Amino acid sequence: MGDLTLFTYDWVPEPPRGYVRDLRVRWALEEAGLPYVVKSVSFRERTAEHFVHQPFGQVPWLTHGDLSIFESGAILLYLGHLSETLLPAETRARSEAVSWLFAALNSVEMASLPWTLAPEQKQFDGFVESRLKHLEPVLAAREWLAGIFSIADILMADVLRLVDRFEKLADYPACRSYVARATSRPSFLQAHADQLAHFAAADAANSELPRVG
Amino acid sequence: MGDLTLFTYDWVPEPPRGYVRDLRVRWALEEAGLPYVVKSVSFRERTAEHFVHQPFGQVPWLTHGDLSIFESGAILLYLGHLSETLLPAETRARSEAVSWLFAALNSVEMASLPWTLAPEQKQFDGFVESRLKHLEPVLAAREWLAGIFSIADILMADVLRLVDRFEKLADYPACRSYVARATSRPSFLQAHADQLAHFAAADAANSELPRVG
Repeated sequence: MGDLTLFTYDWVPEPPRGYVRDLRVRWALEEAGLPYVVKSVSFRERTAEHFVHQPFGQVPWLTHGDLSIFESGAILLYLGHLSETLLPAETRARSEAVSWLFAALNSVEMASLPWTLAPEQKQFDGFVESRLKHLEPVLAAREWLAGIFSIADILMADVLRLVDRFEKLADYPACRSYVARATSRPSFLQAHADQLAHFAAADAANSELPRVG
Repeated sequence: MGDLTLFTYDWVPEPPRGYVRDLRVRWALEEAGLPYVVKSVSFRERTAEHFVHQPFGQVPWLTHGDLSIFESGAILLYLGHLSETLLPAETRARSEAVSWLFAALNSVEMASLPWTLAPEQKQFDGFVESRLKHLEPVLAAREWLAGIFSIADILMADVLRLVDRFEKLADYPACRSYVARATSRPSFLQAHADQLAHFAAADAANSELPRVG
């Protein structure tokens, strides 16, 4: 089938570092112990080739041999089919993991997005809270969403990390300790360190260029 | 494996009728010719049993025997594994359909949501437009997202229908004709008529109740 290659930007500004969505894919690959390489595409100049793989000019995408997959949810689901460490084989647990994977993206991330875009606008607070208040008892009652750790937890924890960054999890202790539990895994720590190092290397490379003007 | 049962609300107010997300599931079931029944749960009183199946108290969810699946994306993916009419079996086409299924939800619906929630706020216009401008050439060049019709088209067309309802597709003729092409399919027309009839029946039933006070 060939190598797994993850594509991300060559550089991003400081604020999104540690939150660029290639992190989700790095985390899953580390969790499963799948060998992979990371390649960069230009952040400043999105090429025609970039749009062939990611039609909106975003990252990440993943290639596996001549297969090219975009959208972090689709990539994680694909990796789940390569490794039972990421997606349990048993029908019921697998079905729960897939439902929760979509819930992380479509019920929680989608509800938190208007608020992260415009946190000063109180009109959006209720939307993200309508999700967190129902997620709180779920996460108080179980360690991981599908019973055992899966790609659903990678997505949900990554989505909640951003909510936590904006200090919105203070009233949801089970959500907050779930994020702490997930992000203390060695696979997350490795993925996070690797993403920071990737972008820091770009800064170092740029500073070595002769200045013009 | 048992029957396929789709759960939706017993009643909703007028504005969302024709847009409640059980429509996506009805459409897929009609498209595949899979037999199913529809059951109602209370819109006004969300029971504890409701939250067991849909942790955020939303609809739809689908049961198949003793399996219960929530999130419209997860349900469509599940149905895709039951019918090649919904999800092609060939590896490359299947992978493209799954990437586009997530793109419909996470790149297009997520980008259009802040704007549909607050269309008067011009700050959100650019976000949905940043997606539509890249989707336009894709849909100008192909009939369906994965080459042949799939669950990706059910989700993308349903997402774009709502954007079109708010008159935001005027500058994107390929997106608009894609919506027209998808929603002229007999399976969509049946699903749409069934949802309207379902909620209209609730009105009729309510009007037969004796008035109190």
